[in-house]
Amino acid sequence: MTVQSKPSTVTTGPIAGSRKIYTSPEGRPDILVPFREIALDPSAAEPPFRAYDCSGPYTDPGTRIELEAGLPPVRAPWVAARGFVPAEARAVKPEDNGGASGDRLVPPCPAPQTVLAGVWGKPVTQMEFARAGIITEEMIYVAHRENLGRAQMLDGAEERRADGEDFGAAIPAFITPEFVREEVASGRAIIPANINHPELEPVAIGRNFLVKINANIGNSAVTSGAAEEVEKLVWAIRWGADTVMDLSTGRNIHNIRGWILRNSPVPIGTVPIYQALEKVNGEPDKLDWEVFKDTLIEQAEQGVDYFTIHAGVRLPYVPLTAKRVTGIVSRGGSIMARWCLAHHKESFLYERFDEICDIMRRYDVSFSLGDGLRPGSIADANDRAQFAELETLGELTKIAWNKGCQVMIEGPGHVPMHKIKVNMEKQLRECGEAPFYTLGPLTTDIAPGYDHITSAVGAAMIGWFGTAMLCYVTPKEHLGLPNRDDVKTGVITYRIAAHAADLAKGHPSAKLRDDAVSRARFEFRWEDQFNLSLDPDTARSYHDETLPKEAHKVAHFCSMCGPKFCSMQITQDLRREAERMAGLEQKSAEFAEAGKAIYLPQQAAE
Amino acid sequence: MTVQSKPSTVTTGPIAGSRKIYTSPEGRPDILVPFREIALDPSAAEPPFRAYDCSGPYTDPGTRIELEAGLPPVRAPWVAARGFVPAEARAVKPEDNGGASGDRLVPPCPAPQTVLAGVWGKPVTQMEFARAGIITEEMIYVAHRENLGRAQMLDGAEERRADGEDFGAAIPAFITPEFVREEVASGRAIIPANINHPELEPVAIGRNFLVKINANIGNSAVTSGAAEEVEKLVWAIRWGADTVMDLSTGRNIHNIRGWILRNSPVPIGTVPIYQALEKVNGEPDKLDWEVFKDTLIEQAEQGVDYFTIHAGVRLPYVPLTAKRVTGIVSRGGSIMARWCLAHHKESFLYERFDEICDIMRRYDVSFSLGDGLRPGSIADANDRAQFAELETLGELTKIAWNKGCQVMIEGPGHVPMHKIKVNMEKQLRECGEAPFYTLGPLTTDIAPGYDHITSAVGAAMIGWFGTAMLCYVTPKEHLGLPNRDDVKTGVITYRIAAHAADLAKGHPSAKLRDDAVSRARFEFRWEDQFNLSLDPDTARSYHDETLPKEAHKVAHFCSMCGPKFCSMQITQDLRREAERMAGLEQKSAEFAEAGKAIYLPQQAAE
Repeated sequence: MTVQSKPSTVTTGPIAGSRKIYTSPEGRPDILVPFREIALDPSAAEPPFRAYDCSGPYTDPGTRIELEAGLPPVRAPWVAARGFVPAEARAVKPEDNGGASGDRLVPPCPAPQTVLAGVWGKPVTQMEFARAGIITEEMIYVAHRENLGRAQMLDGAEERRADGEDFGAAIPAFITPEFVREEVASGRAIIPANINHPELEPVAIGRNFLVKINANIGNSAVTSGAAEEVEKLVWAIRWGADTVMDLSTGRNIHNIRGWILRNSPVPIGTVPIYQALEKVNGEPDKLDWEVFKDTLIEQAEQGVDYFTIHAGVRLPYVPLTAKRVTGIVSRGGSIMARWCLAHHKESFLYERFDEICDIMRRYDVSFSLGDGLRPGSIADANDRAQFAELETLGELTKIAWNKGCQVMIEGPGHVPMHKIKVNMEKQLRECGEAPFYTLGPLTTDIAPGYDHITSAVGAAMIGWFGTAMLCYVTPKEHLGLPNRDDVKTGVITYRIAAHAADLAKGHPSAKLRDDAVSRARFEFRWEDQFNLSLDPDTARSYHDETLPKEAHKVAHFCSMCGPKFCSMQITQDLRREAERMAGLEQKSAEFAEAGKAIYLPQQAAE
Repeated sequence: MTVQSKPSTVTTGPIAGSRKIYTSPEGRPDILVPFREIALDPSAAEPPFRAYDCSGPYTDPGTRIELEAGLPPVRAPWVAARGFVPAEARAVKPEDNGGASGDRLVPPCPAPQTVLAGVWGKPVTQMEFARAGIITEEMIYVAHRENLGRAQMLDGAEERRADGEDFGAAIPAFITPEFVREEVASGRAIIPANINHPELEPVAIGRNFLVKINANIGNSAVTSGAAEEVEKLVWAIRWGADTVMDLSTGRNIHNIRGWILRNSPVPIGTVPIYQALEKVNGEPDKLDWEVFKDTLIEQAEQGVDYFTIHAGVRLPYVPLTAKRVTGIVSRGGSIMARWCLAHHKESFLYERFDEICDIMRRYDVSFSLGDGLRPGSIADANDRAQFAELETLGELTKIAWNKGCQVMIEGPGHVPMHKIKVNMEKQLRECGEAPFYTLGPLTTDIAPGYDHITSAVGAAMIGWFGTAMLCYVTPKEHLGLPNRDDVKTGVITYRIAAHAADLAKGHPSAKLRDDAVSRARFEFRWEDQFNLSLDPDTARSYHDETLPKEAHKVAHFCSMCGPKFCSMQITQDLRREAERMAGLEQKSAEFAEAGKAIYLPQQAAE
């Protein structure tokens, strides 16, 4: 694959055993929210199982996918009604693509785009609308999306919700658009939704919503091109990425980002300092406010939904990293630290933070306040450098909120299990409950090649404690750039972590899917078990390795025990007998209870 | 591969970048304890890193491996001095191998074996020796083995140990043989070591030792033969399995077990009821005490180190499972439940528990009291059936201890995160701190194909809370029998969980390896990073996928950022400057401190 390759095809078609459906919130037939419906075997006597779906139109055979045309702009009518004005669209400059030209230039995505900007004095961001008491279509959309399965749980909701430990989260039995509005107004949740990203299917990120996951993609100077990145995007959301960050650092990043945005139904995040650095030939000392500001506007106009801004890496914190085992491991953090030291000046991101807010507000680009000083090893976890930065992020959160901007906070990194909880607690305290967005954390450093697993442990735990979004880690972490398989492994692993967290928090309907899988398993409905799982293809292929024949898909055994003996089968046989016994016990218990009632008054009188 | 295949070759040779060494405890040059030494690049200016090693002689090029001869009987001289008597060795019966004959019979392992038995009135088990105040060679061995790295930590031990949360464990800075003796005498730790397994390299299992992991192997009626199982054993211990359970259920299990035992340096566990069931044609109702007892003796004489005995599945508990989503999922549990219901009698394992103890004591077979009623789904976690059985296991633990037997307790299963801790607390309370040995637990049911990951989350957590040994789960769980790759993935995943737990508990030297990897990573010592990792082969191959050239192994960048820009490199450049700044700050702080000292008396006087 050459660098200049242009995207042509991506993976499409439904996920095995399921079909895309759309339903509308009450009273808003114009809003179509996607779900995935998994049909079950008739023997189950259960309705199809409905799953949250962030895979976009790619899994809908009814949508014709043309990458050059981009996705249908579902948000366009909503945004059009909000009185935004055409932006004085910034002209693309050669340095936006790293000076690539001729054969080396990825052609721009030809999908049409009207570039809009907000005006002063009228709400632009979801937070501003929320504070003004206005419920946006995005809020209605995410309320409907999050309510998946909750209606059927409402009767027994209190009981079910009690079965969890939410560490102070306030998860409602049913989510109303008004609840979403309140969460966004308070800053406890964000809906990353650039007004220039009309292709977006909105998603809520906050402690009182389902835990979300992010997948990183992006080329580097060493490898990968546009076609590969667009396919990684589509592949990542197919398996469940709620948002995707494009961390490209090589040439052509403007045009690659265009292809990604016009074809992305999920929020896209970037780290603008990466591109700014490319524009100054990779020399951090040469960065300045002008090039950075220009990059913010460039990317905001393209439609990027959230920016990682490392404004918490302040000059006085840099010496705090000197004795660390792994120093500064964040790319953005090390760029800014170098800039601060080279100029012996406070970070221009920190000093110009007001102006950054003004730019991001105009397009409703959400902040992801970067943790440039996150620990890169177990040895450096929870040190003064990390926490000093977190305190500054809290300070910046308040400034951004005052400007009307939506904010989430990035978190570590590498943290042993016993030091994870204090991270969550400190983040909530310092940052006024703004959503936390963590990378893992990795709970040990000794397993490169398996860091999706070392970090899934930390991610599940911190998600349980209150983290709103988990940034995935792939098996290639520390070793190389993830390929398509790595992206899938990372996404599935993080869907596991997020779901384990939802279960432990007591999300009202999280357990429905576990129960559906378990019933299928117990009843030997093999196809249902595969289709209800996070990755039907892998589950099916693993089963077929030892028992490939079609007949075995209905067999009441698996290769672990074989046909002669199966504990599940024995239990089913037992159940009839046991139920009879339980009936006897019940009668006996009722009798005892009745007896008690007769004698109790006498005892009390004694 | 046909069922009757005979083992011939297994994987041998050192793990990449390391060599086997042996060191002796002070004053006992006859005891040779294996470690693995990983040489580092001269630029590191660090001594070779020493790692715990359970791979046995297979990774020692100095040992000639002949499967037919078995491993060197390192324990033979120790055992010989203890006054045991030759057992009246039970003759092998056709039903021991499921009636296999001729071509279908796996030939027995021809390695010589003298079958011993203990006598009444003299100590046989490690617990009996410990209670008699006698420190066995096994205790000296495990003390030396566990002390890995602790000597170098002793100076700063208190500080380091404080950096962990041990939930009441009592982990010493340095482990003496006397400490091991006390732990074994109290029942808080076991050293599974059948007197008929002289090939064993002893291992301690207890909350105050390093967390251990178990790998399950074994054929089933559907698939796999002897050669495959012996290779799985060798492969599992190569990657770090501390013990291995042979869960075979098909034909030839007596002879397969012989091959495994004579070639195993790690403790081997079995579930004798599986073989007993084979002997009665797979019909649970036909089981009785005589066939079970005969099987216990058969396997004890072969040298099995621990038996899973499901004596806690009592008749009155069976109805408690009737309303479960997944009923009884333990094979042993469902066999016994069926037996109880069929005969409407209390379990013979429960009623004959005294006699079982007497048999197991004679050979020092440790108990692994099985959790036959463990939950098989999130829905069934922590229910009355599960906890009723656990209470009975506590009662049985005391009986076994009175008989002099070593005991550990099996635990679940499928448990969401918020319900894990109570399992550990209840187990410690009910079972008098006998070591807990859990399967996972899996923290969600929705990811068949990835259950090594759903369970690694639970395993790391419960290991941190106090579980002594974690039974691995492979990617094939619920779907099929694990192959060689699955065994490796399961073992590495569980080494991660166990190590993350050790770190969080504050084991004195656990962090040494993380720090060594992190230093190698920070200094771009790629080969050192690979070799120090749990799986050097995978780490190396992942790196080479994107940067295959030899030159890149010394390059100060990786494919994630590329050569033009690297945060680690920037940080190293920064460090010099930052150290200078820190020096200035230090001077300024000293000055301020001195100033304070001058003015303090005055302030105090005010």
